Amino acid sequence: MNTIIAALSAALGPDQVLTDAASLHARRFDRWCVNHLRDFRGETLPSCAVIARPANVADVQKIVRICTAMNTPIIPYGLGSGVCGGIVGNPRAVLLDMGSMNRVRSIDPINLLADFDAGINGLLAEQLVAVEGLTIGHWPQSIGISSVGGWVSTRASGQFSTAYGNIEDIIYAIEAVLPNGDLVTLGCAPRAAAGPDLRHLLMGAEGTMGVITGVTLSLRRAPEQRTFSAYYAKTMDQGFAAQREIVQTGWLPPVMRQYDHPEVTRNFRAHARDNQAMLLMVHEGPAARVQAELTAVAKIAADGGMAPADPQVVADWMDQRNHVPEWRDLIERGLIVDTVEISGTWSRIGAIYNAAIKELAGLENVVNASAHSSHVYRTGINLYFSFASLMDGTERMEAAYFDGWDRIMRATAANGGGIAHHHGAGRLRKAYLHHDLGDTGVALLRRLKTAMDPQNLFNPGNLIPDA
Amino acid sequence: MNTIIAALSAALGPDQVLTDAASLHARRFDRWCVNHLRDFRGETLPSCAVIARPANVADVQKIVRICTAMNTPIIPYGLGSGVCGGIVGNPRAVLLDMGSMNRVRSIDPINLLADFDAGINGLLAEQLVAVEGLTIGHWPQSIGISSVGGWVSTRASGQFSTAYGNIEDIIYAIEAVLPNGDLVTLGCAPRAAAGPDLRHLLMGAEGTMGVITGVTLSLRRAPEQRTFSAYYAKTMDQGFAAQREIVQTGWLPPVMRQYDHPEVTRNFRAHARDNQAMLLMVHEGPAARVQAELTAVAKIAADGGMAPADPQVVADWMDQRNHVPEWRDLIERGLIVDTVEISGTWSRIGAIYNAAIKELAGLENVVNASAHSSHVYRTGINLYFSFASLMDGTERMEAAYFDGWDRIMRATAANGGGIAHHHGAGRLRKAYLHHDLGDTGVALLRRLKTAMDPQNLFNPGNLIPDA
Repeated sequence: MNTIIAALSAALGPDQVLTDAASLHARRFDRWCVNHLRDFRGETLPSCAVIARPANVADVQKIVRICTAMNTPIIPYGLGSGVCGGIVGNPRAVLLDMGSMNRVRSIDPINLLADFDAGINGLLAEQLVAVEGLTIGHWPQSIGISSVGGWVSTRASGQFSTAYGNIEDIIYAIEAVLPNGDLVTLGCAPRAAAGPDLRHLLMGAEGTMGVITGVTLSLRRAPEQRTFSAYYAKTMDQGFAAQREIVQTGWLPPVMRQYDHPEVTRNFRAHARDNQAMLLMVHEGPAARVQAELTAVAKIAADGGMAPADPQVVADWMDQRNHVPEWRDLIERGLIVDTVEISGTWSRIGAIYNAAIKELAGLENVVNASAHSSHVYRTGINLYFSFASLMDGTERMEAAYFDGWDRIMRATAANGGGIAHHHGAGRLRKAYLHHDLGDTGVALLRRLKTAMDPQNLFNPGNLIPDA
Repeated sequence: MNTIIAALSAALGPDQVLTDAASLHARRFDRWCVNHLRDFRGETLPSCAVIARPANVADVQKIVRICTAMNTPIIPYGLGSGVCGGIVGNPRAVLLDMGSMNRVRSIDPINLLADFDAGINGLLAEQLVAVEGLTIGHWPQSIGISSVGGWVSTRASGQFSTAYGNIEDIIYAIEAVLPNGDLVTLGCAPRAAAGPDLRHLLMGAEGTMGVITGVTLSLRRAPEQRTFSAYYAKTMDQGFAAQREIVQTGWLPPVMRQYDHPEVTRNFRAHARDNQAMLLMVHEGPAARVQAELTAVAKIAADGGMAPADPQVVADWMDQRNHVPEWRDLIERGLIVDTVEISGTWSRIGAIYNAAIKELAGLENVVNASAHSSHVYRTGINLYFSFASLMDGTERMEAAYFDGWDRIMRATAANGGGIAHHHGAGRLRKAYLHHDLGDTGVALLRRLKTAMDPQNLFNPGNLIPDA
């Protein structure tokens, strides 16, 4: 690797090429729970050989061309907030640290467009457009620790997605360097019918098809009014039915979150009632529309037999919604924990919920099996399962972790759901990807990968199942 | 070709393999104006050698495998309503007539999903879901003569797109046979982050990446209320400003159409006033939201200096909106005519309009150069240019046709617009595709094509510029 380190240093200047142990160590994995567990247990987890920190797009092209010329793997790295094992250190690889490209390029209040370097922190990007009275409207829980390019690369969703869409609905243009070193800028108009939408080759590719260097997002004006409402649901099915009615009659609260009773108790103890679930909503937009929506939603909830709850619960959620737990803290307390997001149609989601919760009951030392929904569509809804096992020591935590995942993946697939809603696939869901794509779809993905990256240098081993 | 005809007949049965002159003649081109002109002028336009009419997906796989084994081009054909030259007969090719696969597979009012064979007529599909109180919400002008699969294949837009989205926003799943004969079903959940969204490889591919055999669409409930409104705009820019304000403040009339004065005069003569443009809107949804929207839109229009017009003009448009002219009738009257749809951001659309209209003034014997907008986004809007030249005979019509297109394409690209909004690219826009994708984007599209279809058998010559 010394040859490539020398070549990178010559091309970029030595300041942009890091080989010190601390820098390499800090980027040896992302927020995938399993690697934190292994690290906690004292296992040695490999780092990359070198970190290349581009200052601009030309630097990225240089890095990519050097790596391809030397047949060296290259791992695009944003801010390291992924939770599915997209980033795993490789001593034969170059880590391409996009965190060094973090400027705002332009904010355009007339056309509601903002152009960012891919490595910019998401919350900073939001704060910069907020100064202009605008919002990206994309609020992943990780907003404070994730990058705009990472949002695109993992097909992220934000908490306000029900009205404002997921990242693919917010993207205007993607700039990327392909494995062959070509720079592409895809997206130059509000909408196009100019062949397949090639932006989708990069959205969700998790570093396997090239590296995203810039992202133009289509913004929104800050809403005139924001109001909260909340309702108790006697059962999850009762809440799902109301949510379906709200969305299918044409209302779109940006936030609709339905917590099962264990999660109500855990997150909003003061508001917990009997064995009930809760539906929390944020209503935003022109004041007159918000008022009409509140009235309509109240009627739908009442017709569905749901009782109003104190809207303060939504304010409480707003205050704590972007807290990201540290795996290490949980592991120290003997807990192996994860959240697993899936989706399903309205008629299947109840069965998925019941089957997964039932499956999780068989998990070793399980102390929590719960779920909430957080993203709503005309056709269905997501579920965000949480599981936790309280273990005596860390010995059996990894087995429990993968068992918990496997139980939820199988219960979801067996009941006709989609196995990945918005965290991406990484290495964690590779073995389950065929449930969504079918074997022929997986083969197609593999064929595209080969066409894009014939040397298999871009984040090898991630996302795409082996043949 | 006799060998392949025999092979197809053996595989499908002779009834599904047509070689009679009338059938071949009827499908020798689509609705691309130029081929109708050439035909009118008595030029001989080639037909395909044979028409294969699959009854089901297995038949499609058989046809594809026979063609690839015999290295024979295959041209997927829907209902032939394309206007950009996607279908051109080839005596060495098999025409794969998807019009023979035209069943509704299922309609699911709970999850608002409808699954169709790709070849079903669009209006029939809409009528079938309307029986259940539902709507696809996708109303291309061609709805009566186009297929659902064709909508996907060309990335179509409907007249109600501003609220209901373009076809990519309405698609839930795509079933397709790839050039290698594999059957893929892409899309199994309300939303996924399971790698790149591979449906986008087929949307807009215009038959070059495989053949779409089935489409599942996400429906809407029929709206509670529908109301019309209309306003005069003293200039196109005044109207654009109002439309921008309406959409950026969060209102979404499904239909927003702004006609310049020549088009007002031509289409709505009784309503024409001075030299003014007109903005026509359809408001739909829950009654309370429609009322709030009407009030808000009226205030925005008044604040922008626009005067109300008689909403009857919108009812008139609704009545005649799906009329599709016959090129032959126009050519017989000495007119060479086309419509050209492009898009641009709010700050560029006025310049694009002015530049294209000015450019069209230089078109030989021009008798009309006009435009309307019909699809609105937070970031910008489309324009639908019309040009017409009145010629003495057909001799110079083709040159005028391509010159009219070239003037609009160049004016759009020079002013930063997107050169294709919703008719697709076909053979007509191939030479302009680099304006949208860049040279590296075109090279990427070509690389994907080679990966998908290494023998270049699927609709060769269409869409993708040669290297």
